[in-house]
Amino acid sequence: MKVHLITVGDEILIGQITDTNSGWMARQLNLAGARLTGVSSVGDQEEDILRALEQGLALADVVLMTGGLGPTKDDITKKALARFFGVEMVFDEPTYSRIIRFFEQLGRPTSEAHRQQCFMPSNASLLRNRMGTAPGMWFEQDGKVVVSMPGVPYEMESIMEKEVVPRLMQHFPGLPIAHRTILTAGEGESSIAARLEKIEDSLPGHIRLAYLPNLGQVRLRLTGTGTDEAALRRELDHYARLIHKQLGQLVFGTEQEQLEGVVGQLLREKGRMLCTAESCTGGYLAHLVTSVAGSSEYFKGSIVAYSNEVKMKQLGVSRATLDTHGAVSEACVREMVTGAISALEADVAVAISGIAGPGGGTPEKPVGTIWMAVGDRHRIFAQKIHAGKSRLKNIEYASAHALNYVRRFLLGQLES
Amino acid sequence: MKVHLITVGDEILIGQITDTNSGWMARQLNLAGARLTGVSSVGDQEEDILRALEQGLALADVVLMTGGLGPTKDDITKKALARFFGVEMVFDEPTYSRIIRFFEQLGRPTSEAHRQQCFMPSNASLLRNRMGTAPGMWFEQDGKVVVSMPGVPYEMESIMEKEVVPRLMQHFPGLPIAHRTILTAGEGESSIAARLEKIEDSLPGHIRLAYLPNLGQVRLRLTGTGTDEAALRRELDHYARLIHKQLGQLVFGTEQEQLEGVVGQLLREKGRMLCTAESCTGGYLAHLVTSVAGSSEYFKGSIVAYSNEVKMKQLGVSRATLDTHGAVSEACVREMVTGAISALEADVAVAISGIAGPGGGTPEKPVGTIWMAVGDRHRIFAQKIHAGKSRLKNIEYASAHALNYVRRFLLGQLES
Repeated sequence: MKVHLITVGDEILIGQITDTNSGWMARQLNLAGARLTGVSSVGDQEEDILRALEQGLALADVVLMTGGLGPTKDDITKKALARFFGVEMVFDEPTYSRIIRFFEQLGRPTSEAHRQQCFMPSNASLLRNRMGTAPGMWFEQDGKVVVSMPGVPYEMESIMEKEVVPRLMQHFPGLPIAHRTILTAGEGESSIAARLEKIEDSLPGHIRLAYLPNLGQVRLRLTGTGTDEAALRRELDHYARLIHKQLGQLVFGTEQEQLEGVVGQLLREKGRMLCTAESCTGGYLAHLVTSVAGSSEYFKGSIVAYSNEVKMKQLGVSRATLDTHGAVSEACVREMVTGAISALEADVAVAISGIAGPGGGTPEKPVGTIWMAVGDRHRIFAQKIHAGKSRLKNIEYASAHALNYVRRFLLGQLES
Repeated sequence: MKVHLITVGDEILIGQITDTNSGWMARQLNLAGARLTGVSSVGDQEEDILRALEQGLALADVVLMTGGLGPTKDDITKKALARFFGVEMVFDEPTYSRIIRFFEQLGRPTSEAHRQQCFMPSNASLLRNRMGTAPGMWFEQDGKVVVSMPGVPYEMESIMEKEVVPRLMQHFPGLPIAHRTILTAGEGESSIAARLEKIEDSLPGHIRLAYLPNLGQVRLRLTGTGTDEAALRRELDHYARLIHKQLGQLVFGTEQEQLEGVVGQLLREKGRMLCTAESCTGGYLAHLVTSVAGSSEYFKGSIVAYSNEVKMKQLGVSRATLDTHGAVSEACVREMVTGAISALEADVAVAISGIAGPGGGTPEKPVGTIWMAVGDRHRIFAQKIHAGKSRLKNIEYASAHALNYVRRFLLGQLES
């Protein structure tokens, strides 16, 4: 199955937003075994949309479009599609009823713009949008498929996962393709690649290994194709086991798992309640933990001690520690762990204090210097890490690193 | 000047990297008054590159390409360009000397691959690459321009700024273009479109209005072109003022501002310290506030009270309130505001308690029901909002909404 992507929107062409939809879609389509022929980004002009459609359909079996379906005047994808297929726009009553119900639930009025949104090309099969008002549209012509989706990322993602990918797989059945994903944290891409060199050299031609690094984690993805799906899956399991064995404690999970979910599951199994004490990460670590549904079963809360007064008053950090060692120090994060366990009545705490930047760095403690500690009422471990120079990346990197620190603490992998 | 962008690389088409080059280039070109006709991403295949080149040159005066200039085998942009122009590849001695010097400085050896990198299409003018080894290439044919640059972002950016944009400005002196962006929070795209209908209908043909919605915020962008740049800017200012007047308190800023920065600036001006008390948002609101560099000047910290015990012990919420009204109630968020101000010794607090989902909903309080309160030692305001069904979106939406609530409180826009 060959697929071409078209992203529509003047906001892309003037650089006001970066098109992340096409990257997300490329990843999903790659996993589904599709081959991308290219991506075209065009502006909100009918002629440009029509040209991209023609070029896309000349190259591929499927053209997926995002953008230009909202209720405002610059959204003209639908009209371009009607013209492309030579059909009328017709009013879709069920969509209108759904939009009215949707806004009633929100306690907001609907406007004429919402009614206009319900006119669709007459040959469109509508695809349910569970996250917003504009449905996706599925068109078929001469054995090829065109799909139009809203440009809002989470709406597009939901329609892709629930509607488009399953239908495409049915429409264009291909050679079985299978994946195994092994998730690692704590070492970089090149260090992991060096550890896996022999295994990688031994892979047969129909199995590939890809490295997907992100913020202190590296996802390893094995992709295989073959005619015998069961044999292929056994083969992939074999190489996944080899990789897991080679990397040992660096592996924290597989497939769609996330570090925050793995940590949550460990806490649940061990019946322990977690809390966090954060300075430079400003609540982002607590956000990661609570992004998991059901996290209230193992998470008590967090004290974001952005000021030193809060560190002293709420977390019991001593003035002597702050005066002698500063807030970014091993002594401080150790006291934050003890103070958080006591204040929030938790079993395990993780604490972070560092210099996220861009200001606040010194020759001894440059921007990116981050101390963290993890522990319970009996033992506390601490370590210093060095992040980069970008404030937001430092916050995200330190938080991800702290989560992995909690995981290793819970598994007894830390040494005194 | 009309410009078309082509980004080359299989890694884009399998979703392994997200193409951020085209967004960066689009912004620079937009500032320079160029109009982008589109962006094409293609794989490392000569025929795809040639097709994209032909299509790009049919639409635009200039085609800018990135990617496919490195020393590895799959980088074939140069060969495709030589074929496109019908010229030979010739060895460029100065480039080779520079590469050898560059690696000598790093103390690393050069390889045959580096020598291969010095073969260029014979009609190329080379553009100096201050950040790496592969130079950019400038081609002219029939009054049109084609430029090829490396795909490494900082190398491309350096060549664009120092070489390409200045040359293009000289080559295609064009009509001025200008933009005004107005930032709003609190109402959706269609509701704002309804309020602006008359203004939008009155816009002259050379000025357009675009809506860019995201999580309870809508950015409005006016774009105009004209021969008299000063007159154009005055005209845009006029329409920006009309829009601002029509939308009133919904407007929180202009251009590149962000709501968290605007709230921070207000706190700084008023000399007030903020704190947050969060339940369902789990620290995300504090993260938004602290994502701004220098936020320690006006932010004390946060208590993330995920469990009811923490709400009682740290925030002083009464057991009677929790028993009678529940944690997701007006009474609870009001007590959270008072408790946070006292615990964190702040002037202003904002509190959030709601049902982020997917579990925990009831018929009276379905998933997405969120109470929030904002106040100081004298007055507290509270409101209930209804978010959607996705846990993460609810967290982000509620946090953004709460920030806007703080802004309106600080500006005295809330009524008892």
